Amino acid sequence: MAASNVQPARGTRDFLPADVRRREHVIRVVREVYERYGYEPLETPAFENIETLLGKYGEEGNRLIFKILRRGEHEASGETDLALRYDLTVPLARVIAQYQNELPRFFKRYQIQPVWRADRPARGRFREFFQCDIDAIGSTSTVVEAEQIAAVGDVLAALGFTDFTILVNHRRILTGLLDAGGVPPAQHEAALVALDKFDKIGERGVVAEFLSRGIDERAASRIIGMLRDIQGIPSNGPSGAALANGERIEMLRACLGESPHRSAVENLSEILGLVSKHPVARHLSVNPRLARGLSYYTGAIMEIAVEGIGSLGGGGRYDNLIGMFLGREVPACGFSLGLERIIVVMTERGMFPATAESGVVDAVVTFMDEESKAEALGLASELRACGLKVDVYPEPSRKFDKALKYATGRGARVMGIFGENERQKAETGVRNLLTREQTSVKRSETAAFIVRLLNPTSST
Amino acid sequence: MAASNVQPARGTRDFLPADVRRREHVIRVVREVYERYGYEPLETPAFENIETLLGKYGEEGNRLIFKILRRGEHEASGETDLALRYDLTVPLARVIAQYQNELPRFFKRYQIQPVWRADRPARGRFREFFQCDIDAIGSTSTVVEAEQIAAVGDVLAALGFTDFTILVNHRRILTGLLDAGGVPPAQHEAALVALDKFDKIGERGVVAEFLSRGIDERAASRIIGMLRDIQGIPSNGPSGAALANGERIEMLRACLGESPHRSAVENLSEILGLVSKHPVARHLSVNPRLARGLSYYTGAIMEIAVEGIGSLGGGGRYDNLIGMFLGREVPACGFSLGLERIIVVMTERGMFPATAESGVVDAVVTFMDEESKAEALGLASELRACGLKVDVYPEPSRKFDKALKYATGRGARVMGIFGENERQKAETGVRNLLTREQTSVKRSETAAFIVRLLNPTSST
Repeated sequence: MAASNVQPARGTRDFLPADVRRREHVIRVVREVYERYGYEPLETPAFENIETLLGKYGEEGNRLIFKILRRGEHEASGETDLALRYDLTVPLARVIAQYQNELPRFFKRYQIQPVWRADRPARGRFREFFQCDIDAIGSTSTVVEAEQIAAVGDVLAALGFTDFTILVNHRRILTGLLDAGGVPPAQHEAALVALDKFDKIGERGVVAEFLSRGIDERAASRIIGMLRDIQGIPSNGPSGAALANGERIEMLRACLGESPHRSAVENLSEILGLVSKHPVARHLSVNPRLARGLSYYTGAIMEIAVEGIGSLGGGGRYDNLIGMFLGREVPACGFSLGLERIIVVMTERGMFPATAESGVVDAVVTFMDEESKAEALGLASELRACGLKVDVYPEPSRKFDKALKYATGRGARVMGIFGENERQKAETGVRNLLTREQTSVKRSETAAFIVRLLNPTSST
Repeated sequence: MAASNVQPARGTRDFLPADVRRREHVIRVVREVYERYGYEPLETPAFENIETLLGKYGEEGNRLIFKILRRGEHEASGETDLALRYDLTVPLARVIAQYQNELPRFFKRYQIQPVWRADRPARGRFREFFQCDIDAIGSTSTVVEAEQIAAVGDVLAALGFTDFTILVNHRRILTGLLDAGGVPPAQHEAALVALDKFDKIGERGVVAEFLSRGIDERAASRIIGMLRDIQGIPSNGPSGAALANGERIEMLRACLGESPHRSAVENLSEILGLVSKHPVARHLSVNPRLARGLSYYTGAIMEIAVEGIGSLGGGGRYDNLIGMFLGREVPACGFSLGLERIIVVMTERGMFPATAESGVVDAVVTFMDEESKAEALGLASELRACGLKVDVYPEPSRKFDKALKYATGRGARVMGIFGENERQKAETGVRNLLTREQTSVKRSETAAFIVRLLNPTSST
């Protein structure tokens, strides 16, 4: 096979050790926080029966689903019966239906698994990527939103983010604003699609989209005016967070007047109140422009924004979706973290702790002649019993340089060396790879010596 | 959609929280041990270009590979261009070729990922299952085998297994024995296939298979006789480990005489010597009947046997395979743990620690009226800051029983309760769910009180 054919499939990536360590660090932090909030892990198979997925993601989704050929005698028919997981929500809905008698009525799960989409690969867009979701099923209580916002805040803080904002809005507030602005209900969806692009295309772009989608100029300018008023942005000034959240809530109350959607403002206000004492509170920003593209949201919506980076994830309440396989509505609220994006940003910013970035092993043991092999393995065992990560260079390293290069490449700080000389004197050569000092240590005291060398403050 | 259609696809499983926790426990232990031995994590994509996999697993493998339909305009053609990962070895070989300039010449990786095979599902056989492999690439040194045997021994011990045996043999010892028994080289592979079934079909079954595969009676009985001699099993007695490993090595030397494969005995003997001081040594058993089905082994072979259970994994040296994409031989040795089997056995034997089996949360906080919501969330935050796992029952639980049932179902040991009464007195109701005692605690002292209740020996 030609060497050009050893690449991973288009849009997928191999994760070499350093990549895996970085991702594992993020996943570990996320899991720890979510478990502290009482979320439980769920995993579903990589593929589903094709009818479980088809028709759930719209026409584009149907096209982007990877479909698996039937096997055996059906292979030639070109028929497909299975499809790769496209998101974590439809499998969750299936699990909720399948295990309704086993799962608690109020069920909180996290799920961190890859999904596959046949999108055209681009910078930062892959055909295999991890989703990292929490969802709370079975309650309409504002406790759910408040706890999810707090949990996401804790995750970001634990990962080392300090400059994030969690934008919050409410789907029915948007409906109320569009009503108040005079946009007819039939044009609401088009208006939300336009609004969703605010950060990309700016205010003028949104107005242009409104007009091109048949929303009249007066309605468009009323909407834009209300958005400015709510955020407290003067009509001719720069954008900025001019009003505090409490004031924005007041503005929303005023804008929605006696609208039937006014209760949405109270709902959002209650959520803000519930997290007001949590450290996440100072990262929250009521943002009436936040629309979130997915049409299935029915209540509060949230999105993490980082200056200069964009979105690191988002979520919201969607009360009509998770019961799709049950034939009845089941309340739900979820939050999805953009794991791949988070890893990219953390890598660029050097946010990974030394443990996730540093050397793989603490020490490498090497032997100069065949006769010293057993001694080398023996020392490695002793060091591992002390909790160290230890590698043995497998070849007799008469050419010491090779072993040294290997040990350095693995990030080891210490090298244990055995040769004829050491064997005869019952000693070990111990080389500090940082200072390049090498000393001879009594064989029986070698493990303790190396442990001290690696961890000078320890009393071992 | 009919309720019958909410099952996972045939041969796949949903992992509910308790299942995930059990698997995560095993994976965590395995990873910790392998990392202590200097193995590094690698992950590859779920699917590969189809030509990367086709032809690598024989005709049956080609049939059992899940193939993915081409997308877009090609969808109707029934053509496939991608295929799901079938094992972890071919992707490793591809990675070794693709990143040959980045990876160290001596490369040790572990990989724990699902693979997919369109086998007929049966009890304990799934179409999606995890493989858990270590491989060391680039060295023919016996250090590699010795370290892998020690690592696997450490994994099994760390998981709590005490009654395991690691059977060891050598592919070229088998060749030497077949030569010595008078089996012509052309029949060696057939003989190994028969020998591989020894545990299932017994000595008579193996002889019958030998004969049916055209091996003559004298050769068959010579082979069986040698196997008995080497193990020290009298020709009319029961099977048992009658000879120590050192004696078996001596017998092997005698059987192989001046065979060119005699060096294999020395190779195996050296491996045994290198692990002789490691705790795994007392679990090792030289077993000349061990054949391991896979024809790609070229040196030492190993298999974990547990009385009454069968194999929990195995491995060996395979020096001709991993270079398949490089067009040259690259030495390699690997060990694969049967993760699914290990989990089944550990579940049956109750080997999981309390942390993997026990309740998901430490405490549940509940509120009796809407006004107490914020207090409940506040206490939950305080307890989480103390490192506890805490859930908030999201509905006002005027019907206290519901919240109580929920808390018990989640494995909580403590419940924090807020109602009008508690709010007025600045107190918290704290219920010990094990003793059913309920007390009132000053609100400001509640978190410390609950931490002490959960962890009486702590000085917090």
